Amino acid sequence: MTLPSLDILGIGNAIVDVLAPTDETFLQVRNLPKGGMQLIDAAAAEALYGAMPAGVESSGGSAANTCAVAAGLGARVGFLGKVAADQLGQVFTHDIRAAGVAYPTPPLASGAPTARCLILVTPDGQRTMNTFLGACVTFGVADVDPAEVARAKVVYLEGYLFDPPEAQAAFRAAASAAHGAGRKVALTLSDPFCVGRHRAAFLAFVQQETDILFANEAEITALYETDDFEQAAARAVQDVEIAVLTRSEHGSVILSGAARHAIAAQPAKVVDTTGAGDAYAAGFLAAWAQDLPLAEAGRWGSVAAAEVISHYGARPQASLKALVAAGAPA
Amino acid sequence: MTLPSLDILGIGNAIVDVLAPTDETFLQVRNLPKGGMQLIDAAAAEALYGAMPAGVESSGGSAANTCAVAAGLGARVGFLGKVAADQLGQVFTHDIRAAGVAYPTPPLASGAPTARCLILVTPDGQRTMNTFLGACVTFGVADVDPAEVARAKVVYLEGYLFDPPEAQAAFRAAASAAHGAGRKVALTLSDPFCVGRHRAAFLAFVQQETDILFANEAEITALYETDDFEQAAARAVQDVEIAVLTRSEHGSVILSGAARHAIAAQPAKVVDTTGAGDAYAAGFLAAWAQDLPLAEAGRWGSVAAAEVISHYGARPQASLKALVAAGAPA
Repeated sequence: MTLPSLDILGIGNAIVDVLAPTDETFLQVRNLPKGGMQLIDAAAAEALYGAMPAGVESSGGSAANTCAVAAGLGARVGFLGKVAADQLGQVFTHDIRAAGVAYPTPPLASGAPTARCLILVTPDGQRTMNTFLGACVTFGVADVDPAEVARAKVVYLEGYLFDPPEAQAAFRAAASAAHGAGRKVALTLSDPFCVGRHRAAFLAFVQQETDILFANEAEITALYETDDFEQAAARAVQDVEIAVLTRSEHGSVILSGAARHAIAAQPAKVVDTTGAGDAYAAGFLAAWAQDLPLAEAGRWGSVAAAEVISHYGARPQASLKALVAAGAPA
Repeated sequence: MTLPSLDILGIGNAIVDVLAPTDETFLQVRNLPKGGMQLIDAAAAEALYGAMPAGVESSGGSAANTCAVAAGLGARVGFLGKVAADQLGQVFTHDIRAAGVAYPTPPLASGAPTARCLILVTPDGQRTMNTFLGACVTFGVADVDPAEVARAKVVYLEGYLFDPPEAQAAFRAAASAAHGAGRKVALTLSDPFCVGRHRAAFLAFVQQETDILFANEAEITALYETDDFEQAAARAVQDVEIAVLTRSEHGSVILSGAARHAIAAQPAKVVDTTGAGDAYAAGFLAAWAQDLPLAEAGRWGSVAAAEVISHYGARPQASLKALVAAGAPA
């Protein structure tokens, strides 16, 4: 086993977010699943965009957000994901590289445009996401270089990739390359609806390939088909080495074997919850990659999530390094 | 003279802003004119974008911002300006229409891309703008329908249009159409550097064609080549019917004939001054179009400017109608 030259290699959808404020009625009349993510096709994306208020564009994508935040915390990070050779693809590429993340995936030369996620933010700060995957659906096994995976301490996979079939295959190839090189595989379940669409495949992947599992309460209970969080948590810790379970304002719970760490949420005025889970995972993994204790990794996650929900958009606007250092144990 | 069906028709550059935070050193080493706007070509834009941190994209353009804000205040507004038929052009078009502004200009089918402004925001909230005009330079006389101009109570022209020669001609055609229909012509000087580049042409246009002039302290003193604000103000009120002069945290002064109204700045925590002048002009014109007194128009301008500088980006995030109503005279 050679020394890893990356801490984290993220694999996920390469997406540009379009954020706009809406009221509850806007969601209701269109039957949009509040707080969740739905996939939409090009025509539906055009229709929804036409009806939306003026927006703000910024780079998004779940694992990509995690990578950008982790790099901001000092981790050495790479990302794999597919944009098109268009203006939004240039924006995504610029932003993730400007965040200090290595991003080698070549853009799709022709065909579908860069993916976008139309995110409607209601007055309570909840975000409802409508994703047109565009070029992302062409991400496949050929885009995963096993040597690149082997270079990283952990490969971090976003559950949303279970939607495009080509990406699912890439996902398994990455996990296999990681374990072949003695590295860890981390998975985030991403979304309860996505878990529902692919429950059996998710469960098999968690049990067979996942070392570090990230999920929120809705996702972990969906995975184990129970209404009871504690029951789901008990199942998770049997299936993976480390289960990291987030519970919004109730903080998070980190389980590993017999150890259980309850982490308080950091205080924050919620403006927009977009990217909260992504930022939490970033903080956790950046600390984990430095071999910090699990409870401290959870604190880093909570600090990163609190920063990201305090403003519009999924990527930090303040120095997370400084915020994390400010609350570090003496 | 038929009854106008628009309050304000804005004419300006159709631009997508890319905002990113930087430190002072970033500006200094690149010799960027802090607080001002410089024009850059495609190659310089690519180089600067490559060096910039991750950004946030949103629709901009000085007159376009004014139009969007004025529509939010209830004015009936149209905008003329040129985007390309590309993704950023779609973003600009969506956003200005979503703001309730009529936007009839057809996009440029091929050639230059949609204009973008790379805006660097320093920790003091000052913005330094670097504009690649792209498709905007093709905006010309053919894009100005005199009937459209004649429909509006006032045509509002942004001084930045003095940079592309084709647009200058369009500018004069619009002023001529407005006056021919008995309407008013408003001009914003936009930028002291732009005034410096075209001082004689600006002065002639102010004296011969302008009814309502918007300028900040740096711009009005540049126009009249004096260091003394009061001297410049005295000159301005001789040249135009209404001179609206903004002075950042010192508020604004509205001069018309012998009348002089000093308007206090609204309290605001400055995060990003991008669009402050645009929002002020919007508030002023939206109130003026309702025949409100000049002092009240100034208050509307101050309220709109205070909202816009309190967050990142040039367009409002709160209901300006509510903010304006909250402080209305009994």
